[in-house]
Formats: sequence, C-alpha cells, structure tokens
Amino acid sequence: MPILTSQEFTRRMQAAQAAVRANQLDAVLVFSTESEPAACRYFSDYWPSFETTAVLIPAEGDPALLIGPESLTYASSRSKIAKIIQLMDFRESSQPDYPGSKLPKWSDVVSQYKLEKIGICGWYLFPYAMMTELAKAMGGMENIVPADALIRPVFMKKSAEEIACLKAAAKASEAGFKAILETIKPGMTESELCGIATAAMTAAGAEATGYPVWCCSGPNSDQAISRPTMRQVRCGEIIHFSIGAKVEGYSASIGRPVVLGTCPDEIRKFMQVGLDAANMTFDEMRAGRKSGDVAKKIHDYIRSQGYGDAILYGPAHGCGQMECEYPFLETSSEYMLEPDMTFMQDMFLHRNGMGFRWEDGLLVKAEGPAEMLSSYGRKINIL
Amino acid sequence: MPILTSQEFTRRMQAAQAAVRANQLDAVLVFSTESEPAACRYFSDYWPSFETTAVLIPAEGDPALLIGPESLTYASSRSKIAKIIQLMDFRESSQPDYPGSKLPKWSDVVSQYKLEKIGICGWYLFPYAMMTELAKAMGGMENIVPADALIRPVFMKKSAEEIACLKAAAKASEAGFKAILETIKPGMTESELCGIATAAMTAAGAEATGYPVWCCSGPNSDQAISRPTMRQVRCGEIIHFSIGAKVEGYSASIGRPVVLGTCPDEIRKFMQVGLDAANMTFDEMRAGRKSGDVAKKIHDYIRSQGYGDAILYGPAHGCGQMECEYPFLETSSEYMLEPDMTFMQDMFLHRNGMGFRWEDGLLVKAEGPAEMLSSYGRKINIL
Repeated sequence: MPILTSQEFTRRMQAAQAAVRANQLDAVLVFSTESEPAACRYFSDYWPSFETTAVLIPAEGDPALLIGPESLTYASSRSKIAKIIQLMDFRESSQPDYPGSKLPKWSDVVSQYKLEKIGICGWYLFPYAMMTELAKAMGGMENIVPADALIRPVFMKKSAEEIACLKAAAKASEAGFKAILETIKPGMTESELCGIATAAMTAAGAEATGYPVWCCSGPNSDQAISRPTMRQVRCGEIIHFSIGAKVEGYSASIGRPVVLGTCPDEIRKFMQVGLDAANMTFDEMRAGRKSGDVAKKIHDYIRSQGYGDAILYGPAHGCGQMECEYPFLETSSEYMLEPDMTFMQDMFLHRNGMGFRWEDGLLVKAEGPAEMLSSYGRKINIL
Repeated sequence: MPILTSQEFTRRMQAAQAAVRANQLDAVLVFSTESEPAACRYFSDYWPSFETTAVLIPAEGDPALLIGPESLTYASSRSKIAKIIQLMDFRESSQPDYPGSKLPKWSDVVSQYKLEKIGICGWYLFPYAMMTELAKAMGGMENIVPADALIRPVFMKKSAEEIACLKAAAKASEAGFKAILETIKPGMTESELCGIATAAMTAAGAEATGYPVWCCSGPNSDQAISRPTMRQVRCGEIIHFSIGAKVEGYSASIGRPVVLGTCPDEIRKFMQVGLDAANMTFDEMRAGRKSGDVAKKIHDYIRSQGYGDAILYGPAHGCGQMECEYPFLETSSEYMLEPDMTFMQDMFLHRNGMGFRWEDGLLVKAEGPAEMLSSYGRKINIL
C-alpha cells in the first residue's frame, strides 16, 4: 500500500505557514475530533480516538500537536510533528479527573508562541467550552477568527502521493463490495453485511473504514445518510451499499444498489437513470468548467427523464482525507474545476419510499473527462 | 437480541422533564455528534451519521429531535420522538449549500417553545458557531447554562432493559475476541485483525462496533488509547485487543492481551499482576462503598506488587450507551457505588514501552461482589 513521505508533510506545513503569513495571523489552530479527524491528520498523521486534538501552525517556527491527557504514547507513535503539548481541554467528553495530573494551560501556549491573533480551522466543530478558555488566554474573541477558507487552497488540489492513496482506498472499497456480491443472501441483516464488507477491506490492506459503512434495504433504501440496522434483506427490493475504505488517512467510497431475485421494471428503470447520470458526471467534470454548470446539466438530465423530484443534492462532493470534504458540487457552486482536484461522484436518487446511490471517486484531468479512481466499472447488479 | 420498548423511552423522557422542571429551566438541549452519539440516542434512539443532532426536552409538552438537512428520512425511520425539526446548523462540517433549501432558524425554535432559559447537555462538545447562533436567538449567553449534571442522575442507574442490552453487547464482544483467538497468526496486520473482530461481532448480532476497535502489538502495546495500524503482529510480544460491540445503542468491551509463541517471564508476570488487579476490582465494586476508596485499594495493590509506575488511570469507568461514560472511577472520586450502576472494569498498565488492558463489563449488585456482564471468564492467552 502507498505510504505518505515526510516530504509530503513538510510541503503541506510550509504551504499552510505561507497562508498564515499571507493572512497576517500569528498562527492557525486546526481542530479535529474522532469522527472528523481529517484536518489534523492532514498535517500530523495523527487521528484521535476518544479524545480530540488540534495542530498549532505558527507563521514561523515549529508547529505543535495539541492532545489530551491519555493519548501521549499513541500520538508520539504517529505524529509527524515532533512537538506535542497536552492540555486538559482535549480530554474525553466524559470528563475524567486525572487526579495528580499537571498539564499546561492555554495561557502557556499563547505566551510560548506569542499569539496575538489566530485563526481557527474546523470552526464549525470547535467546542464552545474550549473557545471560552482560549478566548480568555487570547484577551478576547476579537483576536480569534474563522480560518477554514485560508487552509482550503492547501488541500483542494491533490499531490501524486495523495492520488495514489485515494486510488488504493478506492481499490480496497471495491474489495468490500465484491465480498458483498459473493456472500449476500436473503435473511442476512444490514449490519452483518456491513461487517463482511469491513473485514474484506481491512484484509485487502485498508487501515479502517472511511466512515460508518451502510447498507439500506427495502424501505431503508430511501435514506441518503444512514446507518445499518438489524433488518433482514429480501428479494425484489433495492438494497444499496455505501462502502468506504481508508488508506493512509485517505477515504474513498463505492456506492451501488443491488437487487436479489426478480427486479421489478420500475426499479430497474429508476436505477438505470441514476447510472446514466453518474456516468454523465464523469464525462462532464472537466478542467476549466464551472462547477455549478456541471451540476445543473446533470440535474437537467435527470429532470428530462422524469425523475426531478428524486434529486436530493449533488451530483458530487470533494474527497480526500474526508470521504466528503469541501467543496460540494452543487447547482449554486461558483468555483472552476481544475486538474488534480478529486471528488466522489455521488448520485443519490429517491422517490416513493425507495432510493439508491451510485458513487465512485474521480480525478479531474488537465484534458478530457474525469478519471475514475478505481477500475471497477459499474453495472446494474441483479443477483 | 434485546429491544428497548417504547415504555423505556417514555420513562427516560419523563425523568428528564422532571429534572428540567426541578432546575427551573424551560428546556434542555441535548447535543450529540457522529462519534459521541450516546446522549441523543438515549432519548430518541436516533444517532447521527455525518451530520450532528440535538434533542430538545421542554419542561412540559412534546420534545423535538433537531437534525440537519440530509437526515430526514433516516431520522424519521428511527426516532422515538415524533416531532422532527431540521436546522441548517446541524449540517455536515464540510458545509454544503443546499441551494433552495428553506429551513427554520433557532429563533423559530425559541419562539415556538417559548424558551427564556435553557440548559445544554453535551456542553464540552457543543460547537462555538452553533452556540453563537443559539445565544442570539436566546437574547444572550446569560440564558444558557451547562446542564450535563442535571441529566446524569437519569442515566447513571440502569433499568432491566438497559442491563439486558449491555449483556448482549458483552456477549457479542466476546464473539469478536473468540474470532481473534481462532484466526490470529504472526504476519497479520493490526487492522486486519480488527476487521475480523468486527465481522464476527455483527455476525453475532451486534448492530455496529461501540468505538473504533483496536489491536496494539509490540511497541504499540504501550498505548492506552489507540487505533490499529498496518503493523504485522509477531511472536513473543504483547498484542492487546480492545473489542467492543454495540447492541440497541449499548456499548460493551472486552480487553485482553495475547502472546503468540513463547512468552517471556517478565511479560507473563506483568500480565498476571494486571489480571489479579482486574479480578480484585470485581470483588471490591460493592454497593455502599465510596468509589475513590475502591480505586485507591486497587492502585495500592498494584504498587505493592512493584508496578506503581505502570498505572495510568482507572481502574474503571461508567458504561452504557457510551463505552466510556460518566462517572470515571478514580482515586479522586467521591460518589457512592449503588446497585444497578454499570461500569467497565478497565485495567490498563504500561511500562518500559509495553502495556496491556484487561477489560470487562460489570454490574454493581445490592449485595456481594459485582456481576460480570459476560460469562466469558479470563485467563492469560499464550497461543
């Protein structure tokens, strides 16, 4: 499996520090949680478990990884950032006491790094309680600004190493879906099928799943976002899978509907319109085109086939360390598509209490249509 | 597998509403995220994926489940709370636009429920950006107070239904560990082993894992909190597993060290001291005892064996919908142990770059030592 080099981490940190200086800040503080680990992992290769974390990126000098009281040996084993500072504010939400523990405070960090004005990345995740303590140390909220937009240009276009990881994650996601095709039988539960996909992905070299994988069957197929349940899958209904593997922090996904036994014509036609729209998205995602125009064209096609009411969003969203990261591709999107941007083509359609998702990773090329991150291909699966 | 009844959810909501009234609040807002879903699931059976969520519990009248723009069909399929309100603030952190979407605002919720003073549960998770919007609608932060302590008495003692779910989760966790014992071989990766445990748990009836399960081998065994890596396990080293299943929202865990091949005497003795301390914890956790006194006694025993430097925390923490929930059992703990409280006995010891965890669920009984939530037993595993 591909491995990110230390040069790659150095490149990222240098680009982020340049952005901090260009914005006249003393530092940015990049915050991450267990379920949203991407931003900190991007800069440090560390992703938290139970506790939270942040990366402090100063305009000049050495960055620091901020962690909670229990993660020092774990963080030390992974972090590409040598300096690690433990603060009580990054502890588990169940708020253990850690009797006898003496950790530095925000005021120590602020004075050590001479911070007068900082930006926060992960603004919409950043806890109120932590912000209150940070603001006290910073002399007020007027010295703290949102900074997600500042860091986005650093990660929006992917390096060759990142693309290799995303392709490996797409390949491992395929292994998860193949295991489903080989084992699925009526009567198996959605959760059981997700467990099978997970084991197949880690056996194929994934470090973990990229998100909580799901299987939505029958009435549950109507759900765009979901979690697997104890429902048993049946013949003649849509069973759709969203299965994503993580490799070196990079998350891909494969989304496919499956029907067991006889497939009613209505369902077959519905899935085919989604598949055609998904294929069209690959063809339309070309460098130099305006993102919103691509989204409108795909939605127009779906409407022309009589399924306009089945559209929820999309037809694509950024992917990288998060399976679903900035930017979304929506009809309101204004940015231009550029080479080396990566997306998940994500076609979720639903109507009349049923739905499905066709999803695959794509890479915007300098010329021609987008490249599929996997070579798996797609077809309607009636087993 | 056990299923929670609607009476159980009604009981919880009534107890929470009584606590809201007793504290002269108009409502509490219970906040949850993808990785910290417990509090909202406790009241609604809904747990978010990608988006965040909250349960609004008014002093009188009907509660509401607050969700983001994409989760309506998913939330409707699960929620025990009939009224569902969508707010843009609960969207994914990648901040999609949802062009054309018209959702209510915090001010609509505040006026509809006539909220003048509210409490927040999940205070340490609650995002700053959301709090800012909520405070505007509430006329300032002086009308918003932390309220985790208000809700804790509702969930600290478990009902018969909850205990049945925890026992089923412990049983499914055992199935995960048994699968490891049957398949582990030198050369397998930590991630692969975690995938095998996951599939075994869902095949045994778990809905999901309770947390990101981990396997820590060799130098990684030093980590109390961790995630599996691509490291290949070897003979003669400690390989410890933390494997937890979720059933109906209830998370248990089984923690065990394993050694392949010949076990050095130093490692065997170290693991035995941990096992003795773990067994002692079950015997000491009796109703009517002060929590901190139990922790001190266990730590004294470990010190008496010459391993005082290997103690990190513990020796137990609350469990329920979170595998690790309030209250921790620490030497500083002041609360009294009561019947029907449930804990994970959690004995993590580490020194000289290696460590291990012995962990099992326990139920405090009216009389005598604690009951183990599973009947698996424990022994030193040298394979």
